[in-house]
Amino acid sequence: MITVEEAELIILAQLKDYGTETVPFELAPGRVLAEAIEADRDLPPYNRVIMDGIAIAYKAIEQGISTFKIKITQAAGEQPIDINDANECIEIMTGAALSASVDTIIRYEDLEIENGTARLLITDIKQGQNIHQKGKDKKQGDIVAAANQYVTPAIISLAASVGKAHLLVKKWPKVMIISSGDELVDVADSPSDYQIRKSNNYTIKAVLKQHGLNADMLHIPDDPEITKQQLQNCLQSYDVILLSGGISMGKFDYIPQALEELQVKKLFHKVQQRPGKPFWFGRHDNGALVFAFPGNPVATFMCLHRYFLLWLDAVLGLPAKAHVYAQLAHDFIFTPPLKYFLQVKLNFTKQGILSAQPVEGNGSGDFANLADTDAFMELPLERNEFKAGEVFKIRLFKSV
Amino acid sequence: MITVEEAELIILAQLKDYGTETVPFELAPGRVLAEAIEADRDLPPYNRVIMDGIAIAYKAIEQGISTFKIKITQAAGEQPIDINDANECIEIMTGAALSASVDTIIRYEDLEIENGTARLLITDIKQGQNIHQKGKDKKQGDIVAAANQYVTPAIISLAASVGKAHLLVKKWPKVMIISSGDELVDVADSPSDYQIRKSNNYTIKAVLKQHGLNADMLHIPDDPEITKQQLQNCLQSYDVILLSGGISMGKFDYIPQALEELQVKKLFHKVQQRPGKPFWFGRHDNGALVFAFPGNPVATFMCLHRYFLLWLDAVLGLPAKAHVYAQLAHDFIFTPPLKYFLQVKLNFTKQGILSAQPVEGNGSGDFANLADTDAFMELPLERNEFKAGEVFKIRLFKSV
Repeated sequence: MITVEEAELIILAQLKDYGTETVPFELAPGRVLAEAIEADRDLPPYNRVIMDGIAIAYKAIEQGISTFKIKITQAAGEQPIDINDANECIEIMTGAALSASVDTIIRYEDLEIENGTARLLITDIKQGQNIHQKGKDKKQGDIVAAANQYVTPAIISLAASVGKAHLLVKKWPKVMIISSGDELVDVADSPSDYQIRKSNNYTIKAVLKQHGLNADMLHIPDDPEITKQQLQNCLQSYDVILLSGGISMGKFDYIPQALEELQVKKLFHKVQQRPGKPFWFGRHDNGALVFAFPGNPVATFMCLHRYFLLWLDAVLGLPAKAHVYAQLAHDFIFTPPLKYFLQVKLNFTKQGILSAQPVEGNGSGDFANLADTDAFMELPLERNEFKAGEVFKIRLFKSV
Repeated sequence: MITVEEAELIILAQLKDYGTETVPFELAPGRVLAEAIEADRDLPPYNRVIMDGIAIAYKAIEQGISTFKIKITQAAGEQPIDINDANECIEIMTGAALSASVDTIIRYEDLEIENGTARLLITDIKQGQNIHQKGKDKKQGDIVAAANQYVTPAIISLAASVGKAHLLVKKWPKVMIISSGDELVDVADSPSDYQIRKSNNYTIKAVLKQHGLNADMLHIPDDPEITKQQLQNCLQSYDVILLSGGISMGKFDYIPQALEELQVKKLFHKVQQRPGKPFWFGRHDNGALVFAFPGNPVATFMCLHRYFLLWLDAVLGLPAKAHVYAQLAHDFIFTPPLKYFLQVKLNFTKQGILSAQPVEGNGSGDFANLADTDAFMELPLERNEFKAGEVFKIRLFKSV
């Protein structure tokens, strides 16, 4: 049996470039940038007025001028208009581009305008005030967003500003989620007294969708021939197969045998952890990966976050996420020689501390509590007692 | 000028029920539940085997029996099979339902099976072991997920388990995002030296989409008649209009006049904050709300998160989010009599503390830095100096 850290290393050694594609920038949020975005011109691209008012040449102030003849009104989007004399001003609107003949904006609030003349109501005027200077944020050619990060709304804004109507993004690996077992019926069906409904596959799909990935789903019945045929098809058509359950010593688990016959090489089976000890991971000769999660819902959920999403970030070229640490809110004991993934509910204290309250479940098969949980806290393998106030790493999962 | 807290109260007084709709549960992630989900039967619905092995009656152990005749093999999903004698066992698979005649599971690892007989390799056996007891997680009729919360992957799992193939969820309000101004050109276009591209509208759309809401977009040119006509249409067809820019004292801002003519009542204009001081909020007689954010991108982003998303949570019936607190990483001075929304980058220290590093921007119009920012820290209005180590509220925004 290997440790969590060993399992992670083995999985992260199975990286592959799934390529890139170009998408309209509006569809890019949540994708991973495969190119750097550069400024096509300075940002701002011109000396930009940030208050409605008048534009003057500051030398007029130095000359003691306090009354200005309004030459014309210039709206945002209009060609900049020059003044010819320090006595003149341009009535000018927020967003407008300044001509080189003016360099200072006096806002309406500080003016009295009458008969085409603006009179200053204040004397404290700074050269260049109320102007967002050309190139102050970025210079033409500067990188405004680096590659290998998620396209956020902020990056959408930058892409729009620099005219990147299309963005090169990473392709998702093609993922198939497989459920198996004749004890599972469809959600809309009524199970008999000894059956249950499919659920893990929908949970996995929903988690992947949170991360932008649309996976397919397939149910395989307990039949050796069908199992082998379906797995073979999937290994040819998908980059990753996520299984939940079906990899055990059970007599009707035809999946392990089929995987072996189909040349899927086991890279590990069983990890020193709870939940999820029977986690199996393998690789087909063609590169397709098989993550076979234990069937219990909490184990599947944990392994999906702890291993598959970590792998997904890595293949997408995202930098490893910074670790998140939280304080255990009360003492906890766990004696088996396994790394325990404790379900916790988080809150931020007024001291700025992230506090983690263990959520007591009925063992790893109890999914009902997971809805009240924000993260798994990783309790070190080599210890059995964990004290309130101690700090451990946590793995957050997304609520929405 | 009102305070941030006053603005929040005025906005949160404008709540309305936008109704509910029924959606297939697979499409429900990210929606807000409008009904409680109940267990249609006990969870688990039967005494469920959690390890492959044999099922025995514990009284056999008390009688000193250690060798069992395998009566039959029972797969998951098969009708439970009784034993007739304490010497018998059922070879049984994970997920199977136990008959009332057996109450204890011995896993394969602790057995030797030969010629249809299973011999125990261990003596330490507990009655009921390796069984997930019927009803242990939830009883039939128990609420497994309360109304008025986001549908998470965990809730998808619960919905699937209890057969809720359709879920009643809250309807989104209909939202129109309006940009205006002839200085704005389309993203794919080349702006002249005094024009810029539209971007705020795309940013708003991307943020709303992160929260599951699909908003429409419209650009209004600088023309008083068109402005009025378009706004009138929007006020009839949408619940909320989000404007970015166009509400100032500028001569070519036809929006304020049009709103007034269209009976949109101003509820406030200007908030004691930076960025976003010129934020305008109003309400049409028919109930439609107008959030008019200042045109600068950071102000729009901040107001959208601080006010609109807060309002959205409230109309959807979500409980107010718990406050998040972070420690300021270094001293910061801000003297204007405004509440400052400081852009910060967050990290979790190994002490479990959430530390907030100010991201120095070039003023509120600089969007380039927002891509490096995780949250706004709210620095109290009544103070000017903020010391490293002090803790203040932050508003996180989503990365993806």
